[in-house]
Amino acid sequence: MKIRPLHDRVIVKRVEAERTTASGIVIPDSAGEKPDQGEVLAVGNGKIQDNGEVRPMAVKVGDRVLFGKYAGQSVKVEGEEVLVMREEDIMGVIEA
Amino acid sequence: MKIRPLHDRVIVKRVEAERTTASGIVIPDSAGEKPDQGEVLAVGNGKIQDNGEVRPMAVKVGDRVLFGKYAGQSVKVEGEEVLVMREEDIMGVIEA
Amino acid sequence: MKIRPLHDRVIVKRVEAERTTASGIVIPDSAGEKPDQGEVLAVGNGKIQDNGEVRPMAVKVGDRVLFGKYAGQSVKVEGEEVLVMREEDIMGVIEA
Amino acid sequence: MKIRPLHDRVIVKRVEAERTTASGIVIPDSAGEKPDQGEVLAVGNGKIQDNGEVRPMAVKVGDRVLFGKYAGQSVKVEGEEVLVMREEDIMGVIEA
Amino acid sequence: MKIRPLHDRVIVKRVEAERTTASGIVIPDSAGEKPDQGEVLAVGNGKIQDNGEVRPMAVKVGDRVLFGKYAGQSVKVEGEEVLVMREEDIMGVIEA
Amino acid sequence: MKIRPLHDRVIVKRVEAERTTASGIVIPDSAGEKPDQGEVLAVGNGKIQDNGEVRPMAVKVGDRVLFGKYAGQSVKVEGEEVLVMREEDIMGVIEA
Amino acid sequence: MKIRPLHDRVIVKRVEAERTTASGIVIPDSAGEKPDQGEVLAVGNGKIQDNGEVRPMAVKVGDRVLFGKYAGQSVKVEGEEVLVMREEDIMGVIEA
Repeated sequence: MKIRPLHDRVIVKRVEAERTTASGIVIPDSAGEKPDQGEVLAVGNGKIQDNGEVRPMAVKVGDRVLFGKYAGQSVKVEGEEVLVMREEDIMGVIEA
Repeated sequence: MKIRPLHDRVIVKRVEAERTTASGIVIPDSAGEKPDQGEVLAVGNGKIQDNGEVRPMAVKVGDRVLFGKYAGQSVKVEGEEVLVMREEDIMGVIEA
Repeated sequence: MKIRPLHDRVIVKRVEAERTTASGIVIPDSAGEKPDQGEVLAVGNGKIQDNGEVRPMAVKVGDRVLFGKYAGQSVKVEGEEVLVMREEDIMGVIEA
Repeated sequence: MKIRPLHDRVIVKRVEAERTTASGIVIPDSAGEKPDQGEVLAVGNGKIQDNGEVRPMAVKVGDRVLFGKYAGQSVKVEGEEVLVMREEDIMGVIEA
Repeated sequence: MKIRPLHDRVIVKRVEAERTTASGIVIPDSAGEKPDQGEVLAVGNGKIQDNGEVRPMAVKVGDRVLFGKYAGQSVKVEGEEVLVMREEDIMGVIEA
Repeated sequence: MKIRPLHDRVIVKRVEAERTTASGIVIPDSAGEKPDQGEVLAVGNGKIQDNGEVRPMAVKVGDRVLFGKYAGQSVKVEGEEVLVMREEDIMGVIEA
Repeated sequence: MKIRPLHDRVIVKRVEAERTTASGIVIPDSAGEKPDQGEVLAVGNGKIQDNGEVRPMAVKVGDRVLFGKYAGQSVKVEGEEVLVMREEDIMGVIEA
C-alpha cells in the first residue's frame, strides 16, 4: 500500500536518534521518550499559495527530519503507526 | 438520493482498513476503533480561491482517502451515516 | 412578509428527511432529532469577495440543502422559526 | 442630536415584530423577549475594503432589519437605548 | 504636554452626555455610569493600509464621539485620565 | 553592550512621568505604579509589509513614548530591565 | 551531525549572559534563571512571503540573539538541548 499525501503534507516514520561519541561509539537516546526525528516516507506536490501557484516541497523522500513533540497526526497504515504532518511542522532536515 | 457538495467539500463513507500479510492473508483492523479511511462518494466543484478562481479538487469519486480521527461532520443520508469534510481535511489518497 | 437576506446569507426552513426503502415505502427519520436538512426560502446577492466583486450564490430558492447540526441562527418570522445561515454553512444540495 | 456612524456601522432601534393572521388580525410577539428586528436610524459611508475603496452600504435609513439576538452594542442616546452594529451583523431586510 | 498618537490611534477624554428635554431643560445622565461619549483631543496620521498607503482619519480634534463601554486603554497624562483608542473603536460622531 | 532590534521592534526603558503644576512645581506620579511611559533606546529597521517592502519606523531613539500597562516583553540587559515591544504597541509620542 | 533549518527557522543555543562592570569585572547573571540569550547555530533560507518570494534572514550563524522566555521549541540534538525558533521570535541581535 502506498499513500499519496495531498498538497503540503508529509508522511513521516519516527526513528530513534543516535549519538556517536568522539570514539565512534553509538549511543541511542534514552528509551521511553518518543523520538522527535523521523524519515520522510512520502511528500505531497506542494503547498498551494495564495496566488494559486504550487510551491514545491522543501523535503524529499528519505530525508531525516526534526519535528516538534506534538507535530502531526498519527495514523495506522497496514498496522504500522506513521505521522502525517505539514511541511510547516518540520523544523529542519538532519544532514548526517 | 444524490448530494452535490458545495465548493471544496467531499462526502466520504468510512470503510474498514484491511491489511494483507506477506502470505496474502487479509487481516481487518482491530474492531472498535472507527477507521480513518473512507471512500469518496461525491466531491464539490473546487475551492474558490482568494482571486475568485476555482481550484479543481485533488480527489475524485471512488478514491480511498485517509483523514484525521475528528475530520468532517457526520450526517445521516437515507439512514446511513456519511462524513462531509473539506478537501483540506483529507491527508492523502491510498493507492492500492 | 418577505426577507431579503444580505450578501451571502441564506434563509432555510428545516424539513424532515425521508427515506425510501427499496420497495418504495417512505420512512421518516426518527423523531426527536432536529433534521439537518432544509429548504432554501431566500438567498442574498452573493458574497463580496476580497477584490470587491460579488460572487453569485451556489444555492437557489427551493433547493433542498444539507447543513451541520449547529449551523445558522434561529429567528422567528411571523411566528415561524427559520434559520439564517451563510452559504459557507451549507454542505451540499440534495438532488432528489 | 444626530449621530453619524463611522464606516460600516449602522444605528438601529429595536421594534416589536408584528404578525398578521390570515384574517388580518395583528398579533404582537410574546412579550418578554427582546425583538430581533429594528429600524435603521443612521448608516455610515460604507466599509473600507482591503483595496482602500469604500463599499456602499446595503441598508438605508428606514429599513426594517433582522439581526441576531446578541448583535451590536447598546448605547444610550438622549436617554433612549439604541444598538450600534456593523452591516455585517444584519442578516436581512424585511420587505413588508 | 502634548501627545502625538501613532497611526490610527485617537486620544479621547470622556465627557458627560447631556439630554435636553422638549422644553429645553438639560438633564445630565444618571451619575455613576461612565459615559460612552468623549471629546477627541488628538488623532494620528491615519491607518497604514495593507497596500502601504495611509488612510486619513475619519474623526478630528474636537469631535464628540461615541464608543463602546470597554473601548480604548486608559492612561494618565499629567494626572488626568484619558482614553487611547483606535479609530476602529469609535462608533460614530455626535453632530450636535 | 548594544542591541539591534529586528524589524519593527523597539527597546524602551520605563521612566517616571512628571507633572508640572501651573506654578512650575514638578510632581512625580504616585509611586508603586509602574509608569506607562518610557524612552526609546533602540529601534529596528521597520516592519516588513505584506508587499515585501519595509515601512520605516514612526518613532526614533530618544522619543518619549506612551504604551499600555502590559505592552512588550521585559528582558534584562546588563542587569537592567528594559522592554522590547513592537511599534504597534506604542500608542503615542509625548511631545514635551 | 548538522541540521538545516527549513525556511525562517533558526537554531539557537542558550548562553549565559555576562555583565562587565565599569572596572572590567565580569558578573554572570544570577543562576537558576534560564538565559534569554543565545548563539545562532544555523539559519534557514528565509521566510516564504505571500507573494512567493523568499525573504533572506535578518540573523546569521554566530549572532548573539535575544529572545522571549518561552520562545522556540526545545529539541535534543546529539544529547544537547537546543532551541528551534522562528526569526519572528528573535527580538534583537546583541552587538558586543
